[in-house]
Amino acid sequence: MSSTLSTPPGYAPFDLDSLRRWLAGKPELAARLGGDPEGWRVDEVGDGNLNLVFLARGPAGGLCIKQSLPYVRVAGESWPLPLERAWFEQRHLADTGPVVAGLAPRLIAYDPVLYAVVMELLPHHKIMRLALADGERHDHASIKVAEYAARATFATSVLARPFEAVADLQAVYARNQALTRISVDLIFTHPYIEHERNRWTSPQLDDLVADLRGDIPLKRAAARLGHAFLTRHEALLHGDLHSGSVMVARRDGSGVARRDGSGAAPLDGPGATPDDARVIDPEFALYGPIGFDLGAYVANLLMAYFSQPGHEQRLGDRADHAEWILSQVGVFWRHFAARFDALWSERSATATGQAAGQASGQAPDAYPAALFAGAAGRAALADERRVFLDGVYTDLVGYAGIEIIRRTIGFAHNLDFERIADPERRAACERRTLRLARRLMVDPQAFADITSIEQAARELAS
Amino acid sequence: MSSTLSTPPGYAPFDLDSLRRWLAGKPELAARLGGDPEGWRVDEVGDGNLNLVFLARGPAGGLCIKQSLPYVRVAGESWPLPLERAWFEQRHLADTGPVVAGLAPRLIAYDPVLYAVVMELLPHHKIMRLALADGERHDHASIKVAEYAARATFATSVLARPFEAVADLQAVYARNQALTRISVDLIFTHPYIEHERNRWTSPQLDDLVADLRGDIPLKRAAARLGHAFLTRHEALLHGDLHSGSVMVARRDGSGVARRDGSGAAPLDGPGATPDDARVIDPEFALYGPIGFDLGAYVANLLMAYFSQPGHEQRLGDRADHAEWILSQVGVFWRHFAARFDALWSERSATATGQAAGQASGQAPDAYPAALFAGAAGRAALADERRVFLDGVYTDLVGYAGIEIIRRTIGFAHNLDFERIADPERRAACERRTLRLARRLMVDPQAFADITSIEQAARELAS
Repeated sequence: MSSTLSTPPGYAPFDLDSLRRWLAGKPELAARLGGDPEGWRVDEVGDGNLNLVFLARGPAGGLCIKQSLPYVRVAGESWPLPLERAWFEQRHLADTGPVVAGLAPRLIAYDPVLYAVVMELLPHHKIMRLALADGERHDHASIKVAEYAARATFATSVLARPFEAVADLQAVYARNQALTRISVDLIFTHPYIEHERNRWTSPQLDDLVADLRGDIPLKRAAARLGHAFLTRHEALLHGDLHSGSVMVARRDGSGVARRDGSGAAPLDGPGATPDDARVIDPEFALYGPIGFDLGAYVANLLMAYFSQPGHEQRLGDRADHAEWILSQVGVFWRHFAARFDALWSERSATATGQAAGQASGQAPDAYPAALFAGAAGRAALADERRVFLDGVYTDLVGYAGIEIIRRTIGFAHNLDFERIADPERRAACERRTLRLARRLMVDPQAFADITSIEQAARELAS
Repeated sequence: MSSTLSTPPGYAPFDLDSLRRWLAGKPELAARLGGDPEGWRVDEVGDGNLNLVFLARGPAGGLCIKQSLPYVRVAGESWPLPLERAWFEQRHLADTGPVVAGLAPRLIAYDPVLYAVVMELLPHHKIMRLALADGERHDHASIKVAEYAARATFATSVLARPFEAVADLQAVYARNQALTRISVDLIFTHPYIEHERNRWTSPQLDDLVADLRGDIPLKRAAARLGHAFLTRHEALLHGDLHSGSVMVARRDGSGVARRDGSGAAPLDGPGATPDDARVIDPEFALYGPIGFDLGAYVANLLMAYFSQPGHEQRLGDRADHAEWILSQVGVFWRHFAARFDALWSERSATATGQAAGQASGQAPDAYPAALFAGAAGRAALADERRVFLDGVYTDLVGYAGIEIIRRTIGFAHNLDFERIADPERRAACERRTLRLARRLMVDPQAFADITSIEQAARELAS
């Protein structure tokens, strides 16, 4: 896998041998694995679109090592991509780590020359998207992702911190341009024009794609969402918060495995509880509207839902599972909203004490607690939180729609649909999903609350 | 004026002698003045709140030198302020210079050790706020400020440029934190709480200030505007765009003068036309909502309008002048909206040609032209521009209100009112202005178009 793309001095992609030697040369990492390096098990398991991912295990424990390649893995060297995305991923893990402990992998080390992020190994986990396609229920997963989103976005916003601390972070993530470029092109632009990177189930969906290219209300919505994505810098986002960026505990309790599900021996280790769930892969991190992350997650639940008939062995045998997936849309949003509201409420109470009538210092600068003193003030601030979260919800609706479209007729597709071998069945599922996506984007006001999204999905599916 | 605050090595505030020697030692600057340094006229004319401002004139021409002090000039050493605000001012002049040539002073040099910005001298000019208080009409001034705002904000937005270029600028200005801190505190927080920096015409306005401190709808509006100010990074703003940041050609055609209006001999030089107007002092530059700059300018027109009865020598002798000032509110907004719309329209037409169906490269990333091809697409994009500008207008309304409040009961007051010696007369003018300000903030939707603001002001004044 040698590359003809130029890379900085000292960089080389790991292979199994060079990684083993590198780990053996780092005493603090070698100690975590324990024993003789020759006895370590090292696997390359990356099945994502961009990077190398290795798992290393020894008698004392395991590590996950994620390394940037100088190109988009799924596309090859014809699509170069700067190595520094690994730097942004470790920076996001470091910046959010204190508030999302237990909901994301722990950052252990970063090598700036090799662009390698070393994290704790999650030995009992599999990708949530795969679990949903496999028909597994993970009742805590969406709650944990919602908790993660609430904590990470709140803590990095001017609702929680003085603007200076937030502006410093904004300046950092404003440099994550290579991956933001991918989002701008693949989410907000390419699906709405003719572009060689688009693909869809053809010829079954050709009519729908042709309609979409002439769908002016849809393109207006896409443009508004794109402008908000680039200018509304509310919080530090994950940037790609879908079910493929979540790991859940394996139902069979078995140990680490390839992401394709092939098994391995049981193993103790971090997150060895059945309800563990972790958000991974924040390399697309950027400041943006909070609803962007939430909409992406909801969209991927909806795609999982609409894909279920395609996974049936006999008619209706996925109906219960599908309905459970759909219910997670509401579970997710309601938990997010309640927790974001609670974090904000607690922060205001603390800030009132801290600032004692002063607005500067460590108190947050947005909705300053000093402006909302007393019982009437507290009630007004509670109203403002509701107004704010209503706005986040409206954003969620639109971004859910645009995520569905880009994952169905754009460049990057989902296993949910891709695993449906029969193109007729697949297209039927995709068509229903796209119909909902259009309504979410063009008429978000019609979805007054999260239940109305579930209801609309249910009607389209039946 | 020696300071006990610590400053970086090499920095010292200029006095008239040290500035003369410094200029004499810079051949490219000395040549602009011409002749013998001993013959140069050097004056310190700074009457702003923060900095030293010198004018230097020689037989060949003139220069304006603006230097940071390590504290807030108007407050003294008890309020330290980092020197680097001069760096942000020259950076803004450099970043916007190509698009606002003739509407702002030209940047000639910057000294990073002395924190000194060297600009072209505007020898025929006076501060617009003073001109309005003096009863002068400057029919082109508000049009030129609108042109400046349209060009500067459009050019620095994702409507005009790829997001990477904009993100680079956002990262730069995210560091202008000392002056943004002043805005956050003095505009969005202090006027709404008890704070030692607040002052107002007392006891005449004590009742009104007491009401305001308990005015929950007003404080909710202030908090929303503050959050948008810190998170909606639409364009590079001037950050303090009021009539004290605009210089207009002196009506009597006389040459350079102290800002207090004391005269000097006629002189040729830049901007020696009666309709010249320049926007100065962009040291508060930051990314934010476009309506913030526009609202600040409108607020200062409204304050000039409401202050006119206080400047009357005999009853009604300022009525015509007041009505003319009020008419500039509409002139300003309409010119801004028309020019912003035109710049966007022209940019989309160019981008369509440039990009030829591609969205990447040099084409702007927001509202990509490729999504709005054909006659129907162009019509839809025109609609989107209108929707966008409607949003900017709504922001203008709210930010106009908050600017009036902070200039009337906060720390930094305006000459418009301050020159009214009789506190009863002054308070009467301020009270009417504040009444309008509250309505602008609490009920912006009631001001459906710019004419309705003029009408409301007229009714309150009569």
